[in-house]
Amino acid sequence: MYPESSSWEECLGLYVEKVQVGVVRKDIVEKLVQFPDIFEVVKADSEGNEKPPGVYLSQYLLLPEDRTKALDHVMRVLRQQDELVALRGWRDEMYNVMRTFSGRPYFQVERAASSLIGVMTYGVHINGYTYSPDGKLMMWIGHRSKSKPTYPDMYDNMSAGGLTAGLSVMECALKECSEEAAVPDEHLKHLKQVGLVSCCYENEKGVFPENLFVFDLELPADFKPVNRDGEMDTFYLLPLDKVKELIIGDGFKPNCALVILDFFIRHGIITADSEPNYCLLVEQLHVPLQTIFSKFDKHQFCIPT
Amino acid sequence: MYPESSSWEECLGLYVEKVQVGVVRKDIVEKLVQFPDIFEVVKADSEGNEKPPGVYLSQYLLLPEDRTKALDHVMRVLRQQDELVALRGWRDEMYNVMRTFSGRPYFQVERAASSLIGVMTYGVHINGYTYSPDGKLMMWIGHRSKSKPTYPDMYDNMSAGGLTAGLSVMECALKECSEEAAVPDEHLKHLKQVGLVSCCYENEKGVFPENLFVFDLELPADFKPVNRDGEMDTFYLLPLDKVKELIIGDGFKPNCALVILDFFIRHGIITADSEPNYCLLVEQLHVPLQTIFSKFDKHQFCIPT
Repeated sequence: MYPESSSWEECLGLYVEKVQVGVVRKDIVEKLVQFPDIFEVVKADSEGNEKPPGVYLSQYLLLPEDRTKALDHVMRVLRQQDELVALRGWRDEMYNVMRTFSGRPYFQVERAASSLIGVMTYGVHINGYTYSPDGKLMMWIGHRSKSKPTYPDMYDNMSAGGLTAGLSVMECALKECSEEAAVPDEHLKHLKQVGLVSCCYENEKGVFPENLFVFDLELPADFKPVNRDGEMDTFYLLPLDKVKELIIGDGFKPNCALVILDFFIRHGIITADSEPNYCLLVEQLHVPLQTIFSKFDKHQFCIPT
Repeated sequence: MYPESSSWEECLGLYVEKVQVGVVRKDIVEKLVQFPDIFEVVKADSEGNEKPPGVYLSQYLLLPEDRTKALDHVMRVLRQQDELVALRGWRDEMYNVMRTFSGRPYFQVERAASSLIGVMTYGVHINGYTYSPDGKLMMWIGHRSKSKPTYPDMYDNMSAGGLTAGLSVMECALKECSEEAAVPDEHLKHLKQVGLVSCCYENEKGVFPENLFVFDLELPADFKPVNRDGEMDTFYLLPLDKVKELIIGDGFKPNCALVILDFFIRHGIITADSEPNYCLLVEQLHVPLQTIFSKFDKHQFCIPT
C-alpha cells in the first residue's frame, strides 16, 4: 500500500462523528494539540483512553459550519506562526470534506490546508491524443508555467484540475479542457471518462490521498491546444516512446505521470508480456483509499451499515 | 480489502523460503497439520515460536521439484480422504506458483488444489464487442455449458481461460478466442490488452486470489462467435442495458462480471456522475494482491530488496 519510506503507519486518522475523513502526520499532530477545544488527540501510546488512537474533531462542533469555522480558525493561527510550508500557499479556495465522493460534506477546509489533515481530494485529468499522418498514436503533453506555485516548470497532462464544488465531474473536465487547452466544443463531444487513478503521497506539505478521474480525448490531427489561463507555458505533441521517457524521469508532475501510465495500460502500449511488473503497476494506480479510510469505522466502532 | 463476511483475517499465509505465496483458511490448515514433515504450522496463538503465524513449507524441501512432489503427495492423500470439495474437481493440470507474475516458480500444484493453499492464479478474459447498424455498442456474452464442472449454466465473457504454462499472455488470449469463440485470424489482429482486474474471493473450495488480464476485441457486425471446445452453449449479442442487468443478477460467473464492470468503466458507460459508488467500484476491481502478499516478507523478515 505504501513504500517503506512512508510515514503512514505513524500517522493518526482524523475522525468526525466516528468516521475517518483524513490522515494526519506526527509532525502536524504536534501543531494540532495546541487547540484542545477543537481537536482531541489520542496518541498510540496514550493510556486509559477508551478511544482508539486518532485525532478527533470535537463532538461539540455539531454542524458542518461550526467545524468549518473552527478549522479555519486553527489554520489561520498556524499560518501566522508560519511554521508549516503548506499554509504559505493559501489560496482562498474551499474543499468539501466527505467520507466518500458522493457522501455529504462534514465540513470545508481551505485547499492549501487539506494536506495537513490528509483529506481525500478529487481532480480531473485529461489525456489529449491524436494520430500522426502515418497512423502513430501521439499524446499532447503540457509544460507547466515557471510561475505556478505548485510543481512549476514540470510536464503535465494536456489539462487537469481540482474538482470545483458545484460542478459535476464531466462539467469540470469540460471546463478544464476549455480553459487550459482551448479545446472547442465540437471536439469536446468526444471527451470520455475512462476510469479513476487513486494514489497517496506525502511531502513537506503533508499527506495527499488523491482521486484522479481520468478522461481520454481524441483530437483531430490539425488541432493544437492553446493555454488560456496562464497555467501552461507550452504544449508538445509527442510520440509515445518520448512520453514514456518523460514519465520515468524527474521532470513530470508525479500524479500526472500515473495518469499517463494508466493510459499506456488501457491502450495496450504497456502489456503483461512487455512489462515484468505489470500487475504491481496496475495495482499501484489504484491505491485502495476507500478501504483504508473505511477500515477504522467498521472494525473499531461497529457502525451499523 | 475484504468484506465483513470474509475469513481473511483468520487465514494463515503459506510461506516458502520466507516468501508468502499463498493464503490458507483455518479449516484447511487443520488438514495440513496431518503432514508435519511437509508443513510447519505456526498458529496465531502458538507460544514460544520465533516465527510469525503461518504455514511454512519445510525448509528441507530445497528444490522446486521436491516441493511439487511433496505437495502432490499431500493433495492425493487428502483427495482419498474425500473431505475437501475442491479435490473432487481434480484436473491433472499443473499451475506454477510464483511470488509475482514474472518471478521464478517455487513449485507447481494441481489446479484443483490451488485454492486450498490460496496461491495467486492468472487468467485471460476477452470482452468481444461490436456496434449495431444504428451505432449502439453491443457485447457478446457467453453462456456456459450445463456440463461444465465449475459455474455451469452461467453467463460469461466471450472467452476466458487460465494462463497455460509456456504461453505468453497474448498467446493465451489468442488461443482462447480461437478455441472458445472461433474468432478468425483477421479479426484477432484487433485484440488489445487493456488492463488487469484483481480480486479475491472464497467459497467451499478455498481462497481464490485471482489476476485477470483483460482484453478488448472489437468485432465486425457480421461476425458470430461459435464455440469449438464444448465449454459454451450459446453466445448472445446484447445491448449494454441488458448486460448491466445480467452482471447485477445471480446468473453471471462472478469474476467475469467484474471484467465487464471494468469494461463499462473504461468505455465511459458507468461514470462518476452516474454512479455514487464509482470510486469504490474501481477500487474493488483492483484488490492489491501484490501488496497483500508482499507485506509479510518486508515487515517481518526484513528481506533486503
